Amino acid sequence: MTRRWYLCCSRHHLDTVPEDSDGIVVPVTEHGVATLLPRYPETYEVEDIVDVAKDRGLSVQALMDFTCAGCEHLSPDGYPSLRSTLDYLASDLEVDGVVVADPYLVEVLATEYDLTVVVSHTAAVDTPEKAWHFERLGADVITVDPALNSNEEEVSAIRERVSVELRTAVGAITFRDPVAFFERNLFSHATAEGIEVDPYRNNPYEPMRERVVVWEVREELFDEVFILASGEPP
Amino acid sequence: MTRRWYLCCSRHHLDTVPEDSDGIVVPVTEHGVATLLPRYPETYEVEDIVDVAKDRGLSVQALMDFTCAGCEHLSPDGYPSLRSTLDYLASDLEVDGVVVADPYLVEVLATEYDLTVVVSHTAAVDTPEKAWHFERLGADVITVDPALNSNEEEVSAIRERVSVELRTAVGAITFRDPVAFFERNLFSHATAEGIEVDPYRNNPYEPMRERVVVWEVREELFDEVFILASGEPP
Repeated sequence: MTRRWYLCCSRHHLDTVPEDSDGIVVPVTEHGVATLLPRYPETYEVEDIVDVAKDRGLSVQALMDFTCAGCEHLSPDGYPSLRSTLDYLASDLEVDGVVVADPYLVEVLATEYDLTVVVSHTAAVDTPEKAWHFERLGADVITVDPALNSNEEEVSAIRERVSVELRTAVGAITFRDPVAFFERNLFSHATAEGIEVDPYRNNPYEPMRERVVVWEVREELFDEVFILASGEPP
Repeated sequence: MTRRWYLCCSRHHLDTVPEDSDGIVVPVTEHGVATLLPRYPETYEVEDIVDVAKDRGLSVQALMDFTCAGCEHLSPDGYPSLRSTLDYLASDLEVDGVVVADPYLVEVLATEYDLTVVVSHTAAVDTPEKAWHFERLGADVITVDPALNSNEEEVSAIRERVSVELRTAVGAITFRDPVAFFERNLFSHATAEGIEVDPYRNNPYEPMRERVVVWEVREELFDEVFILASGEPP
Protein backbone atom coordinates (compact mmCIF):
# COMPACT_ATOMS: atom_id res chain seq x y z
CA MET A 1 0.00 0.00 0.00
CA THR A 2 1.47 3.31 -1.09
CA ARG A 3 1.81 5.73 1.81
CA ARG A 4 0.47 9.21 1.14
CA TRP A 5 2.05 12.45 2.36
CA TYR A 6 0.57 15.90 1.89
CA LEU A 7 2.35 19.22 1.81
CA CYS A 8 0.81 21.45 4.44
CA CYS A 9 1.57 25.20 4.51
CA SER A 10 -1.14 26.55 6.82
CA ARG A 11 -3.65 25.58 9.48
CA HIS A 12 -6.40 25.94 6.90
CA HIS A 13 -4.43 23.76 4.50
CA LEU A 14 -4.31 21.05 7.18
CA ASP A 15 -8.11 20.87 7.26
CA THR A 16 -8.11 19.87 3.60
CA VAL A 17 -5.73 16.94 4.09
CA PRO A 18 -7.67 13.72 3.35
CA GLU A 19 -8.54 11.46 6.30
CA ASP A 20 -6.73 8.48 4.79
CA SER A 21 -3.38 10.21 4.44
CA ASP A 22 -0.39 8.90 6.36
CA GLY A 23 1.25 12.17 7.19
CA ILE A 24 2.05 15.75 6.37
CA VAL A 25 5.16 17.65 5.33
CA VAL A 26 5.57 21.13 6.83
CA PRO A 27 8.03 23.74 5.51
CA VAL A 28 10.56 24.97 8.09
CA THR A 29 12.36 27.96 6.59
CA GLU A 30 15.04 28.61 9.21
CA HIS A 31 17.84 27.55 6.81
CA GLY A 32 15.88 27.68 3.59
CA VAL A 33 13.35 25.71 1.57
CA ALA A 34 13.95 25.04 -2.16
CA THR A 35 10.43 23.84 -2.92
CA LEU A 36 8.68 26.77 -4.60
CA LEU A 37 5.57 27.79 -2.69
CA PRO A 38 3.34 30.86 -2.76
CA ARG A 39 3.78 31.30 0.97
CA TYR A 40 5.72 29.67 3.78
CA PRO A 41 4.35 29.26 7.31
CA GLU A 42 5.69 31.33 10.20
CA THR A 43 7.18 29.50 13.18
CA TYR A 44 4.00 29.81 15.32
CA GLU A 45 1.96 28.41 12.42
CA VAL A 46 4.32 25.47 12.04
CA GLU A 47 3.95 24.65 15.75
CA ASP A 48 0.17 24.88 15.48
CA ILE A 49 0.03 22.70 12.37
CA VAL A 50 2.25 20.06 13.96
CA ASP A 51 0.18 19.99 17.18
CA VAL A 52 -3.10 19.51 15.39
CA ALA A 53 -1.69 16.97 12.94
CA LYS A 54 -0.31 14.88 15.79
CA ASP A 55 -3.68 15.02 17.57
CA ARG A 56 -5.16 13.58 14.40
CA GLY A 57 -2.65 10.75 14.41
CA LEU A 58 -0.78 11.96 11.36
CA SER A 59 2.96 11.54 11.01
CA VAL A 60 4.85 14.80 10.53
CA GLN A 61 7.97 15.55 8.49
CA ALA A 62 9.73 18.92 8.36
CA LEU A 63 10.64 20.23 4.88
CA MET A 64 14.10 21.76 5.04
CA ASP A 65 15.25 21.05 1.52
CA PHE A 66 17.48 24.01 0.68
CA THR A 67 19.85 23.42 -2.24
CA CYS A 68 22.27 26.15 -1.19
CA ALA A 69 23.33 27.28 2.26
CA GLY A 70 25.63 30.05 1.06
CA CYS A 71 28.85 29.88 3.06
CA GLU A 72 27.14 28.51 6.17
CA HIS A 73 29.08 25.24 5.91
CA LEU A 74 32.34 27.20 5.97
CA SER A 75 31.43 29.38 8.91
CA PRO A 76 32.23 28.47 12.53
CA ASP A 77 28.62 29.37 13.42
CA GLY A 78 27.12 27.26 10.64
CA TYR A 79 27.24 23.83 12.20
CA PRO A 80 25.96 24.88 15.67
CA SER A 81 23.17 26.78 13.96
CA LEU A 82 22.12 23.77 11.86
CA ARG A 83 22.35 21.52 14.93
CA SER A 84 20.22 23.90 16.93
CA THR A 85 17.46 23.77 14.30
CA LEU A 86 17.64 19.97 14.06
CA ASP A 87 17.48 19.74 17.87
CA TYR A 88 14.39 21.96 17.82
CA LEU A 89 12.77 19.71 15.19
CA ALA A 90 13.60 16.53 17.09
CA SER A 91 12.99 17.64 20.68
CA ASP A 92 10.54 20.54 20.60
CA LEU A 93 8.44 19.95 17.50
CA GLU A 94 8.99 16.19 17.83
CA VAL A 95 8.63 15.58 14.12
CA ASP A 96 8.98 12.04 12.80
CA GLY A 97 11.28 12.90 9.94
CA VAL A 98 13.05 15.61 7.97
CA VAL A 99 13.00 16.13 4.20
CA VAL A 100 16.35 17.50 3.00
CA ALA A 101 18.40 17.92 -0.17
CA ASP A 102 21.89 18.81 1.06
CA PRO A 103 24.00 15.61 1.28
CA TYR A 104 25.79 16.98 4.32
CA LEU A 105 22.50 17.30 6.16
CA VAL A 106 21.57 13.74 5.20
CA GLU A 107 24.77 12.56 6.79
CA VAL A 108 24.36 14.60 10.00
CA LEU A 109 20.74 13.50 10.42
CA ALA A 110 21.53 9.83 9.78
CA THR A 111 24.49 9.85 12.14
CA GLU A 112 23.23 11.90 15.02
CA TYR A 113 19.43 11.86 15.09
CA ASP A 114 16.73 9.25 15.41
CA LEU A 115 14.54 10.67 12.66
CA THR A 116 13.43 9.40 9.28
CA VAL A 117 15.75 10.98 6.70
CA VAL A 118 13.98 11.74 3.44
CA VAL A 119 15.80 13.06 0.36
CA SER A 120 13.71 15.77 -1.30
CA HIS A 121 12.74 16.03 -4.96
CA THR A 122 14.87 19.20 -4.93
CA ALA A 123 18.02 17.05 -4.68
CA ALA A 124 17.57 16.06 -8.36
CA VAL A 125 18.04 12.30 -7.88
CA ASP A 126 17.54 10.91 -11.38
CA THR A 127 20.12 8.13 -11.66
CA PRO A 128 20.94 4.94 -9.71
CA GLU A 129 24.34 6.43 -8.85
CA LYS A 130 22.86 9.51 -7.20
CA ALA A 131 20.36 7.36 -5.29
CA TRP A 132 23.13 5.06 -4.12
CA HIS A 133 25.16 8.03 -2.95
CA PHE A 134 22.31 9.30 -0.76
CA GLU A 135 21.57 5.80 0.56
CA ARG A 136 25.20 5.42 1.53
CA LEU A 137 25.04 8.72 3.44
CA GLY A 138 22.12 7.34 5.44
CA ALA A 139 18.85 8.25 3.69
CA ASP A 140 15.79 6.17 4.60
CA VAL A 141 13.59 7.44 1.78
CA ILE A 142 14.58 9.00 -1.55
CA THR A 143 12.27 11.16 -3.67
CA VAL A 144 13.19 10.80 -7.33
CA ASP A 145 13.23 13.69 -9.77
CA PRO A 146 9.64 14.17 -10.99
CA ALA A 147 10.76 13.57 -14.61
CA LEU A 148 10.92 9.89 -13.64
CA ASN A 149 7.41 9.71 -12.14
CA SER A 150 6.01 7.56 -14.94
CA ASN A 151 9.24 6.04 -16.19
CA GLU A 152 9.19 2.39 -15.13
CA GLU A 153 12.58 1.65 -16.63
CA GLU A 154 14.44 4.40 -14.82
CA VAL A 155 12.68 3.87 -11.50
CA SER A 156 13.38 0.14 -11.70
CA ALA A 157 17.05 0.83 -12.39
CA ILE A 158 17.19 2.91 -9.21
CA ARG A 159 15.35 0.22 -7.26
CA GLU A 160 17.87 -2.37 -8.35
CA ARG A 161 20.69 -0.25 -6.98
CA VAL A 162 19.27 0.81 -3.60
CA SER A 163 17.12 -0.71 -0.89
CA VAL A 164 15.64 2.49 0.56
CA GLU A 165 11.99 3.41 0.12
CA LEU A 166 11.24 5.40 -3.02
CA ARG A 167 8.95 8.41 -2.98
CA THR A 168 7.34 10.30 -5.85
CA ALA A 169 6.53 14.02 -5.68
CA VAL A 170 3.33 14.95 -7.52
CA GLY A 171 2.83 18.55 -8.61
CA ALA A 172 6.54 19.35 -8.36
CA ILE A 173 9.04 20.87 -10.79
CA THR A 174 11.56 18.59 -12.47
CA PHE A 175 15.21 19.50 -12.85
CA ARG A 176 14.75 18.96 -16.59
CA ASP A 177 13.18 22.43 -16.37
CA PRO A 178 15.97 24.76 -17.56
CA VAL A 179 15.50 27.31 -14.79
CA ALA A 180 14.73 25.01 -11.82
CA PHE A 181 18.36 24.75 -10.74
CA PHE A 182 18.74 28.53 -10.39
CA GLU A 183 15.28 29.30 -9.08
CA ARG A 184 15.54 26.68 -6.30
CA ASN A 185 18.80 28.25 -5.19
CA LEU A 186 17.16 31.67 -5.14
CA PHE A 187 14.23 30.38 -3.05
CA SER A 188 16.61 28.61 -0.67
CA HIS A 189 18.14 31.96 0.22
CA ALA A 190 14.99 34.07 0.08
CA THR A 191 13.07 31.77 2.45
CA ALA A 192 15.99 31.62 4.88
CA GLU A 193 16.17 35.41 4.94
CA GLY A 194 12.41 35.88 5.07
CA ILE A 195 12.30 37.71 1.73
CA GLU A 196 9.21 37.19 -0.36
CA VAL A 197 9.90 36.30 -4.00
CA ASP A 198 7.30 38.21 -5.93
CA PRO A 199 6.72 36.90 -9.47
CA TYR A 200 5.69 40.34 -10.65
CA ARG A 201 8.40 42.33 -8.97
CA ASN A 202 11.69 40.72 -8.17
CA ASN A 203 11.90 37.16 -9.50
CA PRO A 204 14.33 37.42 -12.44
CA TYR A 205 13.45 33.94 -13.64
CA GLU A 206 9.73 34.58 -13.92
CA PRO A 207 9.78 36.07 -17.45
CA MET A 208 11.77 33.13 -18.76
CA ARG A 209 9.66 30.66 -16.91
CA GLU A 210 8.92 27.29 -18.42
CA ARG A 211 8.43 25.48 -15.14
CA VAL A 212 7.80 21.87 -15.92
CA VAL A 213 5.45 20.75 -13.17
CA VAL A 214 4.82 17.02 -13.27
CA TRP A 215 1.32 15.85 -12.35
CA GLU A 216 1.38 12.44 -14.01
CA VAL A 217 2.60 9.54 -11.92
CA ARG A 218 2.52 5.76 -11.93
CA GLU A 219 1.97 5.30 -8.21
CA GLU A 220 2.56 1.56 -8.34
CA LEU A 221 6.24 2.22 -9.01
CA PHE A 222 6.67 3.88 -5.61
CA ASP A 223 6.40 3.16 -1.87
CA GLU A 224 5.28 6.67 -1.04
CA VAL A 225 3.53 9.58 -2.73
CA PHE A 226 4.17 13.19 -1.72
CA ILE A 227 1.36 15.43 -2.93
CA LEU A 228 1.99 19.15 -3.41
CA ALA A 229 -1.74 19.67 -3.61
CA SER A 230 -1.87 22.82 -5.67
CA GLY A 231 1.38 22.21 -7.47
CA GLU A 232 4.65 24.06 -7.40
CA PRO A 233 4.06 26.93 -7.77
CA PRO A 234 0.33 26.87 -7.23
CA MET B 1 38.51 23.41 -37.22
CA THR B 2 37.68 23.07 -33.53
CA ARG B 3 38.60 26.22 -31.61
CA ARG B 4 40.62 25.63 -28.46
CA TRP B 5 40.20 27.58 -25.24
CA TYR B 6 42.37 27.17 -22.15
CA LEU B 7 41.51 27.93 -18.57
CA CYS B 8 44.10 30.32 -17.21
CA CYS B 9 44.33 31.03 -13.46
CA SER B 10 47.73 32.72 -13.15
CA ARG B 11 50.41 34.51 -15.09
CA HIS B 12 52.55 31.39 -14.89
CA HIS B 13 49.62 29.33 -16.13
CA LEU B 14 49.40 31.61 -19.18
CA ASP B 15 52.95 30.70 -20.18
CA THR B 16 51.91 27.07 -20.51
CA VAL B 17 49.03 27.81 -22.88
CA PRO B 18 49.89 26.25 -26.27
CA GLU B 19 50.78 28.59 -29.13
CA ASP B 20 48.02 27.25 -31.36
CA SER B 21 45.20 27.95 -28.90
CA ASP B 22 42.46 30.41 -29.87
CA GLY B 23 41.89 31.99 -26.51
CA ILE B 24 41.91 31.82 -22.74
CA VAL B 25 39.22 31.82 -20.07
CA VAL B 26 40.05 33.77 -16.90
CA PRO B 27 38.09 33.43 -13.63
CA VAL B 28 36.58 36.68 -12.34
CA THR B 29 35.32 36.03 -8.83
CA GLU B 30 33.51 39.30 -8.05
CA HIS B 31 30.08 37.59 -8.06
CA GLY B 32 31.27 34.01 -7.79
CA VAL B 33 32.71 31.20 -9.89
CA ALA B 34 31.19 27.70 -9.76
CA THR B 35 34.02 25.94 -11.54
CA LEU B 36 36.04 24.23 -8.80
CA LEU B 37 39.66 25.39 -8.84
CA PRO B 38 42.53 25.14 -6.37
CA ARG B 39 43.03 28.89 -6.52
CA TYR B 40 41.38 31.88 -8.12
CA PRO B 41 43.35 34.88 -9.43
CA GLU B 42 43.21 38.23 -7.65
CA THR B 43 42.01 41.26 -9.62
CA TYR B 44 45.54 42.53 -10.36
CA GLU B 45 46.48 39.07 -11.64
CA VAL B 46 43.43 38.99 -13.91
CA GLU B 47 44.41 42.34 -15.41
CA ASP B 48 47.96 41.17 -15.96
CA ILE B 49 46.85 37.88 -17.55
CA VAL B 50 44.44 39.66 -19.87
CA ASP B 51 47.07 42.23 -20.95
CA VAL B 52 49.67 39.63 -21.79
CA ALA B 53 47.15 37.34 -23.51
CA LYS B 54 45.95 40.17 -25.73
CA ASP B 55 49.54 41.05 -26.61
CA ARG B 56 49.90 37.48 -27.78
CA GLY B 57 46.82 37.79 -29.96
CA LEU B 58 44.69 35.45 -27.86
CA SER B 59 40.98 36.01 -27.39
CA VAL B 60 39.91 36.40 -23.77
CA GLN B 61 36.72 35.33 -22.02
CA ALA B 62 35.88 36.03 -18.37
CA LEU B 63 34.62 33.08 -16.31
CA MET B 64 31.77 34.28 -14.11
CA ASP B 65 29.74 31.10 -13.95
CA PHE B 66 28.20 31.20 -10.48
CA THR B 67 25.18 28.93 -10.03
CA CYS B 68 23.81 30.85 -7.07
CA ALA B 69 23.85 34.57 -6.34
CA GLY B 70 22.11 34.32 -2.97
CA CYS B 71 19.49 37.03 -2.77
CA GLU B 72 21.43 39.42 -5.00
CA HIS B 73 18.71 39.29 -7.67
CA LEU B 74 16.14 40.38 -5.09
CA SER B 75 18.19 43.25 -3.71
CA PRO B 76 17.99 46.80 -5.04
CA ASP B 77 21.80 46.88 -5.10
CA GLY B 78 22.09 43.59 -6.96
CA TYR B 79 21.46 44.71 -10.51
CA PRO B 80 23.67 47.83 -10.39
CA SER B 81 26.42 45.73 -8.85
CA LEU B 82 26.20 43.10 -11.61
CA ARG B 83 26.09 45.83 -14.26
CA SER B 84 29.12 47.50 -12.78
CA THR B 85 31.12 44.26 -13.05
CA LEU B 86 29.94 43.64 -16.61
CA ASP B 87 30.87 47.24 -17.52
CA TYR B 88 34.33 46.65 -16.07
CA LEU B 89 34.72 43.46 -18.13
CA ALA B 90 33.54 45.14 -21.33
CA SER B 91 35.17 48.57 -21.02
CA ASP B 92 38.19 48.19 -18.75
CA LEU B 93 39.36 44.62 -19.24
CA GLU B 94 37.96 44.63 -22.78
CA VAL B 95 37.34 40.90 -22.81
CA ASP B 96 35.83 39.32 -25.91
CA GLY B 97 33.24 37.25 -24.10
CA VAL B 98 31.84 36.11 -20.76
CA VAL B 99 31.20 32.54 -19.62
CA VAL B 100 28.12 32.38 -17.37
CA ALA B 101 25.60 29.90 -15.98
CA ASP B 102 22.80 32.08 -14.57
CA PRO B 103 20.07 32.46 -17.24
CA TYR B 104 19.38 35.99 -16.04
CA LEU B 105 22.97 36.96 -16.75
CA VAL B 106 22.75 35.39 -20.22
CA GLU B 107 19.76 37.59 -20.93
CA VAL B 108 21.37 40.80 -19.62
CA LEU B 109 24.59 40.18 -21.54
CA ALA B 110 22.79 39.34 -24.77
CA THR B 111 20.52 42.35 -24.52
CA GLU B 112 22.84 45.04 -23.31
CA TYR B 113 26.43 44.15 -24.19
CA ASP B 114 28.37 43.47 -27.35
CA LEU B 115 30.21 40.43 -25.99
CA THR B 116 30.20 36.76 -26.87
CA VAL B 117 27.86 35.04 -24.41
CA VAL B 118 29.00 31.55 -23.49
CA VAL B 119 26.95 29.21 -21.30
CA SER B 120 29.26 27.40 -18.86
CA HIS B 121 29.44 23.66 -18.20
CA THR B 122 28.22 24.58 -14.70
CA ALA B 123 24.76 25.37 -16.12
CA ALA B 124 24.13 21.62 -16.54
CA VAL B 125 22.85 21.76 -20.12
CA ASP B 126 22.22 18.11 -20.97
CA THR B 127 19.01 18.19 -23.03
CA PRO B 128 17.87 19.91 -26.25
CA GLU B 129 15.22 21.77 -24.22
CA LYS B 130 17.74 23.32 -21.86
CA ALA B 131 19.98 24.28 -24.80
CA TRP B 132 17.05 25.84 -26.62
CA HIS B 133 16.13 27.83 -23.53
CA PHE B 134 19.62 29.33 -23.30
CA GLU B 135 19.72 30.01 -27.04
CA ARG B 136 16.42 31.84 -26.81
CA LEU B 137 17.82 34.01 -23.99
CA GLY B 138 20.66 35.03 -26.29
CA ALA B 139 23.59 32.64 -25.82
CA ASP B 140 26.14 32.49 -28.65
CA VAL B 141 27.93 29.37 -27.43
CA ILE B 142 26.68 26.60 -25.14
CA THR B 143 28.92 24.23 -23.20
CA VAL B 144 27.18 20.90 -22.71
CA ASP B 145 27.34 18.90 -19.52
CA PRO B 146 30.57 16.87 -19.63
CA ALA B 147 28.58 13.63 -19.33
CA LEU B 148 27.71 14.16 -23.00
CA ASN B 149 31.29 14.70 -24.19
CA SER B 150 31.46 11.42 -26.08
CA ASN B 151 27.75 10.86 -26.61
CA GLU B 152 27.12 11.43 -30.31
CA GLU B 153 23.40 10.76 -30.03
CA GLU B 154 22.74 13.30 -27.27
CA VAL B 155 25.00 15.98 -28.75
CA SER B 156 23.34 15.52 -32.16
CA ALA B 157 19.91 15.88 -30.58
CA ILE B 158 21.00 19.22 -29.09
CA ARG B 159 22.48 20.30 -32.43
CA GLU B 160 19.20 19.58 -34.18
CA ARG B 161 17.39 21.86 -31.76
CA VAL B 162 19.72 24.87 -31.62
CA SER B 163 21.95 26.75 -34.03
CA VAL B 164 24.47 28.16 -31.52
CA GLU B 165 28.05 26.90 -31.36
CA LEU B 166 28.58 23.93 -29.06
CA ARG B 167 31.52 23.74 -26.70
CA THR B 168 32.88 20.79 -24.73
CA ALA B 169 34.62 21.17 -21.36
CA VAL B 170 37.47 18.71 -20.85
CA GLY B 171 38.60 17.94 -17.31
CA ALA B 172 35.37 19.22 -15.76
CA ILE B 173 32.88 17.68 -13.36
CA THR B 174 29.55 16.44 -14.72
CA PHE B 175 26.26 17.09 -12.97
CA ARG B 176 25.75 13.33 -12.95
CA ASP B 177 28.14 13.54 -9.99
CA PRO B 178 25.85 13.38 -6.93
CA VAL B 179 27.54 16.21 -5.07
CA ALA B 180 28.33 18.61 -7.95
CA PHE B 181 25.07 20.52 -7.58
CA PHE B 182 25.76 21.40 -3.95
CA GLU B 183 29.50 21.87 -4.19
CA ARG B 184 29.20 24.29 -7.14
CA ASN B 185 26.76 26.38 -5.11
CA LEU B 186 29.18 26.42 -2.18
CA PHE B 187 32.07 27.53 -4.41
CA SER B 188 29.89 30.22 -6.02
CA HIS B 189 29.50 31.85 -2.62
CA ALA B 190 32.96 31.16 -1.26
CA THR B 191 34.69 32.67 -4.29
CA ALA B 192 32.44 35.73 -4.22
CA GLU B 193 33.23 36.25 -0.55
CA GLY B 194 36.92 35.50 -0.94
CA ILE B 195 36.77 32.49 1.38
CA GLU B 196 39.10 29.62 0.57
CA VAL B 197 37.43 26.22 0.49
CA ASP B 198 39.95 23.91 2.06
CA PRO B 199 39.41 20.21 1.28
CA TYR B 200 40.98 19.21 4.58
CA ARG B 201 39.31 21.74 6.79
CA ASN B 202 35.95 23.16 5.83
CA ASN B 203 34.56 21.53 2.69
CA PRO B 204 31.72 19.35 3.99
CA TYR B 205 31.39 17.56 0.65
CA GLU B 206 35.01 16.42 0.52
CA PRO B 207 34.57 13.22 2.56
CA MET B 208 31.65 12.13 0.37
CA ARG B 209 33.44 13.11 -2.77
CA GLU B 210 32.95 11.08 -5.90
CA ARG B 211 33.66 13.89 -8.31
CA VAL B 212 33.17 12.57 -11.78
CA VAL B 213 35.72 14.48 -13.83
CA VAL B 214 35.33 13.79 -17.54
CA TRP B 215 38.56 13.66 -19.58
CA GLU B 216 37.27 11.70 -22.55
CA VAL B 217 35.83 13.67 -25.44
CA ARG B 218 34.96 13.19 -29.08
CA GLU B 219 36.18 16.57 -30.29
CA GLU B 220 34.63 16.16 -33.75
CA LEU B 221 31.18 16.54 -32.18
CA PHE B 222 31.94 20.12 -31.08
CA ASP B 223 32.83 23.53 -32.49
CA GLU B 224 34.96 24.47 -29.49
CA VAL B 225 36.98 22.74 -26.78
CA PHE B 226 37.50 24.29 -23.35
CA ILE B 227 40.44 22.67 -21.61
CA LEU B 228 40.69 22.79 -17.81
CA ALA B 229 44.32 21.72 -18.09
CA SER B 230 44.79 20.09 -14.76
CA GLY B 231 41.17 19.12 -14.31
CA GLU B 232 38.59 20.19 -11.80
CA PRO B 233 39.80 20.01 -9.11
CA PRO B 234 43.41 19.58 -10.12
